Amino acid sequence: MTAIDEMLRNNAGYAAAFGKGELPSAPSKRLAVVTCMDARIVPLRALGIEEGDAHVIRNAGGVVTDDVIRSLTVSQRKLRTIEVMVVMHTKCGMHGLADAEFRDEVEAEAGQRPAWPSGGFPDLEQAVREGVGKLQTSPFLPHKDQLRGFVYDVETGRLREVV
Amino acid sequence: MTAIDEMLRNNAGYAAAFGKGELPSAPSKRLAVVTCMDARIVPLRALGIEEGDAHVIRNAGGVVTDDVIRSLTVSQRKLRTIEVMVVMHTKCGMHGLADAEFRDEVEAEAGQRPAWPSGGFPDLEQAVREGVGKLQTSPFLPHKDQLRGFVYDVETGRLREVV
Repeated sequence: MTAIDEMLRNNAGYAAAFGKGELPSAPSKRLAVVTCMDARIVPLRALGIEEGDAHVIRNAGGVVTDDVIRSLTVSQRKLRTIEVMVVMHTKCGMHGLADAEFRDEVEAEAGQRPAWPSGGFPDLEQAVREGVGKLQTSPFLPHKDQLRGFVYDVETGRLREVV
Repeated sequence: MTAIDEMLRNNAGYAAAFGKGELPSAPSKRLAVVTCMDARIVPLRALGIEEGDAHVIRNAGGVVTDDVIRSLTVSQRKLRTIEVMVVMHTKCGMHGLADAEFRDEVEAEAGQRPAWPSGGFPDLEQAVREGVGKLQTSPFLPHKDQLRGFVYDVETGRLREVV
């Protein structure tokens, strides 16, 4: 059985017990969370984000890329969110991943150099500050009163505010 | 109380009961899921993704952008995942969002035109096929035996395979 087949089996159980009807598309807490794709972060558990509560945007690192800005622009302008929480984490694979080395390595293995940067960062707290800073200076986000940045500790499950 | 403060209160309870110690960074199911930021999708519930199981990559639409390719490249090359599940969904805000109109609207309101496309799509199933197609043709992903695409129905909680 593949992992995807296992997910489909899990989904069949979920759908059989699904009693929600249709929830609104606009998040009820007017919140968007930007975080890492990391397998150890489960927003429902770590933040208590239930169905309908919040947008959750995730990529390698939880770094604020153009795609994150695009997603937040849609979130704020089309779906009325007003708060943004950036959550990066300890022991992240992107921490210390040097951009040039990563692109060299991918190029050597794949035969083509990525046009995109790795998203790696040398300092975790500084990366959180930079991520929140990119949101603060983005011309595309209308709501900036509640932009906050955190580090999630994968060994304790605890969030710590950085900015 | 802001929504972020509420998340911090939830996190304090989670951390107080946290008994996992440190999980490995590599996902145990060797799976990455690409899906929409939509508030109605909670991967733990809808797919049974527990802490440590899988990478979860999310953006507006669940569209396969360069940032998604970047994240999957890291996922497969650095953290040993081999399967990818693309999950888009019914009643998505990106469904029918015309790119030029969206950029015109943002430009009119923000005073600057986004360099990035909206990510909107005219046909949901076709968008799933295109997303999986981008993964299939990417030179950067070494593992392509298990690339599958689905539509999640927000009214029933059920996944349907498209490709």
